[in-house]
Amino acid sequence: MADLILSSTQGTVTTLTLNSPQTRNALSTELMSRLRDALAAIGEDTSVHVVVLAAEGPIFSSGHDLKEVRGADHARQQEIFDVCTELMLTIQRIPQPVIARVHGLATAAGAQLAATCDLVVAAKSAAFATPGVKIGLFCSTPGVAIARALPTKQAMRMLLTGDPVSAERALELGMVSDVVDDDQLIRATDELAVKIAQASSATVAIGKEAFYRQVSMPVEDAYQEMSKTMAANAVLDDAQEGIDAFLTKRAPEWKGR
Amino acid sequence: MADLILSSTQGTVTTLTLNSPQTRNALSTELMSRLRDALAAIGEDTSVHVVVLAAEGPIFSSGHDLKEVRGADHARQQEIFDVCTELMLTIQRIPQPVIARVHGLATAAGAQLAATCDLVVAAKSAAFATPGVKIGLFCSTPGVAIARALPTKQAMRMLLTGDPVSAERALELGMVSDVVDDDQLIRATDELAVKIAQASSATVAIGKEAFYRQVSMPVEDAYQEMSKTMAANAVLDDAQEGIDAFLTKRAPEWKGR
Amino acid sequence: MADLILSSTQGTVTTLTLNSPQTRNALSTELMSRLRDALAAIGEDTSVHVVVLAAEGPIFSSGHDLKEVRGADHARQQEIFDVCTELMLTIQRIPQPVIARVHGLATAAGAQLAATCDLVVAAKSAAFATPGVKIGLFCSTPGVAIARALPTKQAMRMLLTGDPVSAERALELGMVSDVVDDDQLIRATDELAVKIAQASSATVAIGKEAFYRQVSMPVEDAYQEMSKTMAANAVLDDAQEGIDAFLTKRAPEWKGR
Repeated sequence: MADLILSSTQGTVTTLTLNSPQTRNALSTELMSRLRDALAAIGEDTSVHVVVLAAEGPIFSSGHDLKEVRGADHARQQEIFDVCTELMLTIQRIPQPVIARVHGLATAAGAQLAATCDLVVAAKSAAFATPGVKIGLFCSTPGVAIARALPTKQAMRMLLTGDPVSAERALELGMVSDVVDDDQLIRATDELAVKIAQASSATVAIGKEAFYRQVSMPVEDAYQEMSKTMAANAVLDDAQEGIDAFLTKRAPEWKGR
Repeated sequence: MADLILSSTQGTVTTLTLNSPQTRNALSTELMSRLRDALAAIGEDTSVHVVVLAAEGPIFSSGHDLKEVRGADHARQQEIFDVCTELMLTIQRIPQPVIARVHGLATAAGAQLAATCDLVVAAKSAAFATPGVKIGLFCSTPGVAIARALPTKQAMRMLLTGDPVSAERALELGMVSDVVDDDQLIRATDELAVKIAQASSATVAIGKEAFYRQVSMPVEDAYQEMSKTMAANAVLDDAQEGIDAFLTKRAPEWKGR
Repeated sequence: MADLILSSTQGTVTTLTLNSPQTRNALSTELMSRLRDALAAIGEDTSVHVVVLAAEGPIFSSGHDLKEVRGADHARQQEIFDVCTELMLTIQRIPQPVIARVHGLATAAGAQLAATCDLVVAAKSAAFATPGVKIGLFCSTPGVAIARALPTKQAMRMLLTGDPVSAERALELGMVSDVVDDDQLIRATDELAVKIAQASSATVAIGKEAFYRQVSMPVEDAYQEMSKTMAANAVLDDAQEGIDAFLTKRAPEWKGR
């Protein structure tokens, strides 16, 4: 069981890989717990600047492990979906950006997992679907991520029909951040990760936390809050270093988190 | 007056048709009340799984009946817009998905009516506009639906200029769920309706209600709420039947609502 | 210093022009204060119906004046970002629509300034970027405007990478309202401004205020609020005049604000 999640680190970028290809990377409670714990540990590790979330096998993830959901009583069902929610909130709460690297299919809670990551790089042949409606279990938790990544009518279309959305349509609608040729997926995701990892990890941590805090506020409250965040960011060593380096045309040296 | 709204049912899909072509399907209080009541009655009818909202005549709807709005006192104006709001909220509150089938023009409260439906299928030659600004009556209630269906700058452009948005641009922006050739509009809408009608009506009802409940919440609250919704959905007979049917590769038999 | 902001009025359209090309229209506190005051004064001036916000020199604006931010203590930083926030909120609070006319680059708080305007017309060669992350100062206040103008994953991509978004991609995503050939930028912006300026200024003022009030509300609250706004708008002289003019096929005569 120890290798349900693979972890490898290059420089300041850690790649976590779902490693259950025989179950199509089904999100069993065991796999979700391990992924949650791996992410939480990374959150405490200041040497990691960016996380890539990838998957082994033919697809990214098929969503919940239906064998677990079949026959479970209400308390057990709540346990399954609570672990799922903890996993999703951990992705948003850790200071490092998490980039989903999606190939093949990402369906149901698998689509949710991808859409919850801060950025999503998809292979051109990839697709996203929320087909729970077809098996009597509406994708309501995936809907949280889908409704915030897609225009409402397109989110509703996915949820009510279960029809897949191609990577290219997802890019047109802004649901993913990047789409690349299949054979460039690993390289392009790593390049994106390395680019972000070059920034001050202290600055990125402030920015990620602030973004999710302000995004659901009324705009006036958001501006008041972010004004304080900017002033606090601006007096940090890394901001003063970065500004001075920019004005004097030299490379900055970050302290980081 | 009885035929301001036509109703016909095929299997579990009910089509309601605005039938006032001579007024360009103007949303008089009479028409709005009858449509609201027809939808509310359908909401109670567990034999209906999906509603299609269509229109007779050259256009979908031109919006409010301006002859009613002209000269009305404040109390009467409030009455008109309150009926309109009840109609819109009824569309969102009934358990069945409502699909707008739009041809020709949908303007002002007519655009609002379309954009308030859960899904919108538009003919290629259709267009949407909110031109109230040109006649001194800003489309503020249409703005509620438009702001939630389109990116903000595009919503503002529609509202401030009154310029029409074509069906194809609406699809690019995600404002509508589908665009089809004009001569395929009825067929394509029916196919979409039938596809959704095949799902468990109990599951779809849970999903629709949950979507609109979570969509305006901060993301953390939304996940907490939807986690409970998923657990409750998962113990339903139709979910257990659907999961078992999927795992044993057979067709499910739904109990429904 | 008096000409940091140029002002010129044609009919009912006032164009304010950032006039510090030698600093790439850096948003110094001096420039921001003057722009905020100019906008606030226009807000009181009922003869102005629409504002165009333009810029002299090779680019629209490079954002905050980093020479001010370098070395400033916390109180001074807060002062800088508070003036910035006041400027942004003034744009949204004045009754007249504000149209950004963007050429070249709009970066950091310059991108925020553009994206905070009600409408944005961009030259085809223009681009938007929020590169603060590269200099240690995350674009958290720009993020308020960016998160409300772009799909979340695309907003995050801009903020985490600093990569520019072209005008044409911005149009596809709905981040800007219009993109035109570079040599048509002034003409096209003026035409858009004049079109909106022909509406009743009283009606436009109601609509702009109402839009920003309802946009962050849950949909049911938004409908209840806008229903009252519509009834109040409908009894205004300009609404009754506009409706009567429309029904009797004549040109309306507005009283305005």
